[in-house]
Amino acid sequence: MSRYDIAIIGTGPGGLEAAITATVRNKSVLLVGSPASSEKVYKAHTIQNYLGLPEAGGETLQKAFLGHLDQMGIKITEDRIIAVYNMGDYFGLQGRENVYEAETVILATGVVASKPFPGEEEFLGRGVSYCATCDAALYRGKKTVVIGFSPKEEEEADFMNEYAAETIYIPMYKGDVKVRDGVQVMRVKPKSIEGAFKVTKLVTGEGDIETDGVFILRDAIAPGMLIQGLETDGPHVKVDLQMRTSMDGVYACGDIAGTPYQYIKAAGQGNTAALSAVSYLAEKARRH
Amino acid sequence: MSRYDIAIIGTGPGGLEAAITATVRNKSVLLVGSPASSEKVYKAHTIQNYLGLPEAGGETLQKAFLGHLDQMGIKITEDRIIAVYNMGDYFGLQGRENVYEAETVILATGVVASKPFPGEEEFLGRGVSYCATCDAALYRGKKTVVIGFSPKEEEEADFMNEYAAETIYIPMYKGDVKVRDGVQVMRVKPKSIEGAFKVTKLVTGEGDIETDGVFILRDAIAPGMLIQGLETDGPHVKVDLQMRTSMDGVYACGDIAGTPYQYIKAAGQGNTAALSAVSYLAEKARRH
Repeated sequence: MSRYDIAIIGTGPGGLEAAITATVRNKSVLLVGSPASSEKVYKAHTIQNYLGLPEAGGETLQKAFLGHLDQMGIKITEDRIIAVYNMGDYFGLQGRENVYEAETVILATGVVASKPFPGEEEFLGRGVSYCATCDAALYRGKKTVVIGFSPKEEEEADFMNEYAAETIYIPMYKGDVKVRDGVQVMRVKPKSIEGAFKVTKLVTGEGDIETDGVFILRDAIAPGMLIQGLETDGPHVKVDLQMRTSMDGVYACGDIAGTPYQYIKAAGQGNTAALSAVSYLAEKARRH
Repeated sequence: MSRYDIAIIGTGPGGLEAAITATVRNKSVLLVGSPASSEKVYKAHTIQNYLGLPEAGGETLQKAFLGHLDQMGIKITEDRIIAVYNMGDYFGLQGRENVYEAETVILATGVVASKPFPGEEEFLGRGVSYCATCDAALYRGKKTVVIGFSPKEEEEADFMNEYAAETIYIPMYKGDVKVRDGVQVMRVKPKSIEGAFKVTKLVTGEGDIETDGVFILRDAIAPGMLIQGLETDGPHVKVDLQMRTSMDGVYACGDIAGTPYQYIKAAGQGNTAALSAVSYLAEKARRH
């Protein structure tokens, strides 16, 4: 497996700017996320305060950002990273589609609006999963619940149903749900995840659901859940002014690194995060 | 005198973005500096990593930035701030041309490359000055030295000569010097400023110059000299992630707030500084 210099997780303004700056500095970059950049960007109405691009609609900004990447030959790898493992000398990234390796990691995943469910952290890996693609096969013949925070998770529920004996899909959004026959849609409010050694049930506002597995599919995974041992402050990763986190070789930028939630601030921090990663790589090369 | 909500000192990317964001938030803004934005911007060759404006030359960026200001009706006040006074409930700003008042101050002056001369701080106000326009009249019939860090200071030397009996101009840059007859140009290397209660001489690598006053005209004034009592860290102002300084109501962004010295980082910090000033104003209004 090729090992990247810098893995950047997230394709909002912070991640894109980090990728551009790292590329200018001749680093090999894995930029992983949605190829359409961030939903928050293209769904935005008018952004008045991105200096140099006045009164830009979300689509205009998206076009300008992705055009910049194109011009520099930077590709977005379409995947969702569900866990980052600190391997000592490098990092392993578990995606829904693939696994990757990188010397450094920049977190630009945005901020998770919803709090984890009680029990979510406790049962992670023991019935709670963030990736149907990865773990569906473990639930062959079992009962599963898939909690989807956006319509694109519906296909994850469909995939789950190819293995599980019973798949319940709980949409956390409004609007139509299109899943295959066999997937049961329930509009309930998840409250907590309970069990003994492993998950046994999902408690909802409308009663308990017995299940062997709960798949929680959010747009972003809380940073403390994504990398074990990373210091956080509420929904944010703790960073210093150089965008360094508590873990050597891991940087953060954009909403995940704290307020304000603004495009130009995210981009500015992406620049700083990339340059800090570049410095770290240079320092590491000197030591070896 | 009208008191502004937010005074922004400096017209590089940090200051411009701060002005735009503050204006979006309906604050009254004094944006003071060079009307051509920052020299560093328009003199730059190609900037590859300002997300959304790929491969932009310095002039292209300058045009995009100033066009953004124009579109929002934001004016640049052409002046040089040489001191900021904390008046308790507001700030007084001493410019070369005018004085101003503001509830909050955002420092976006860039970083001072050169260190202060030995004796500069000690004799500030006792023979050392940063403003010929302000203090020339105090040197009527006396001997003065003007140290200019850029050609635009030549007219300050000319102005000084209208009062002083003797004006020596020391250019700290290469190239032609055009000053009026009567101003003596000396290409020497200033070493230190000495005296007793007041300045008596400038020590240079080429010998001592007896003088009553030394005018030091840099593009930016070191932050600790600009505002007494502000905590600094080398050439930078100490800031937190919200771009707050050690002084309530004073914020910093861009190069003055630390490395990396990058346009997009400066702009991002300008956005954060402006929003922190907006929060402070809201908090202050609640208290009153």
